[in-house]
Amino acid sequence: MQIVIPLFDRFTALDAVGPYQVLTQLPGSEVIFSSERPRGVCDNSGSLTLVADAGFGDVPHPDIIVVPGGPGQAGQMTPGPLQDWLIEADKTTTWTTSVCTGALILAAAGLLKGREATTYWLARDELARLGAKSVQERYVFDGKYVTAAGVSAGIDMALALAGRIAGDKFAQQIQLGIEYDPQPPYNAGAEAGAPPEVAAAFRAKSRFT
Amino acid sequence: MQIVIPLFDRFTALDAVGPYQVLTQLPGSEVIFSSERPRGVCDNSGSLTLVADAGFGDVPHPDIIVVPGGPGQAGQMTPGPLQDWLIEADKTTTWTTSVCTGALILAAAGLLKGREATTYWLARDELARLGAKSVQERYVFDGKYVTAAGVSAGIDMALALAGRIAGDKFAQQIQLGIEYDPQPPYNAGAEAGAPPEVAAAFRAKSRFT
Repeated sequence: MQIVIPLFDRFTALDAVGPYQVLTQLPGSEVIFSSERPRGVCDNSGSLTLVADAGFGDVPHPDIIVVPGGPGQAGQMTPGPLQDWLIEADKTTTWTTSVCTGALILAAAGLLKGREATTYWLARDELARLGAKSVQERYVFDGKYVTAAGVSAGIDMALALAGRIAGDKFAQQIQLGIEYDPQPPYNAGAEAGAPPEVAAAFRAKSRFT
Repeated sequence: MQIVIPLFDRFTALDAVGPYQVLTQLPGSEVIFSSERPRGVCDNSGSLTLVADAGFGDVPHPDIIVVPGGPGQAGQMTPGPLQDWLIEADKTTTWTTSVCTGALILAAAGLLKGREATTYWLARDELARLGAKSVQERYVFDGKYVTAAGVSAGIDMALALAGRIAGDKFAQQIQLGIEYDPQPPYNAGAEAGAPPEVAAAFRAKSRFT
């Protein structure tokens, strides 16, 4: 089972590494980070470089695709190495998935047309404009397309996907293995729980309108 | 504010990247991945390579240290590049922290002697044997030493630390930014919630006794 996580400059690190940490534990899985060519790919903060061992041409037929998001998503919405690969590779996947604004990349490739999907909380309107039925959920399954909300939601999505692939018991083993018993010190992870001024500040500076 | 995350072969990726994703957003922060020399460092599954841009000698006086865990921890418990650097660098840190079995590395360096600390759930006895007051918490502050439970707990710990450093409002902004509103599909992240046979299987194959 080949799982490919395509990287692009200014991706968000946790979007990629959260699902990676879960899916790499699936029996018989091989996770490959890829980019237009093998290289170190820098995240949005510029402090983290993850190595893409494969070029897109090396992994034409993955079983699973996980597209991360991040500020660099904006540069991946038009025909180019990632979009071209995605459209072809999706034809033979078992699961095509995204985290955060990775859903916008899938939508731009035409893969979420009319499908229920979710994305980063500030990008839900944009996702709808791109043709998806944009919903507010932690993660959404629609056929073989699975989309997660922002950044950390990729962990939840990957566990749910692991359950579909390897069964609940195995997914629970993975969850225990990463001791995913979340206890955030604040209740500010969704707009509804965050202090209004915190959410308003985000909306004010958002690149999505 | 220089934040250094030391890497070693067979570290667990999410141990490092969870706190990274939070702490890199702190105002004026510079996060640096380091190793005994600058190089790509491979995680425990062998599929992920994170680039350590700095050698330990390049970062002698970080403000914050975050030591990840992972199977490779076992090779970092005796004098060597990481232990030597850690003992010296700790003398001038504001915060010295760990995720998962990274606490065992701190303890082996003598930094947790008599201190309350936590670690990966299967390693709590080992942590006690190394001289810490080992407790079962998601994360523990004891003076400038902050330790987190397994893997994903580094996200919670880093948010709490961000709150101490930059205030609750700022930490809440970070939480909303990574949409950390966890909704795991199972309740198996701690031994108490996991199906007994799942927990028993883990205990049976644990490298800790």
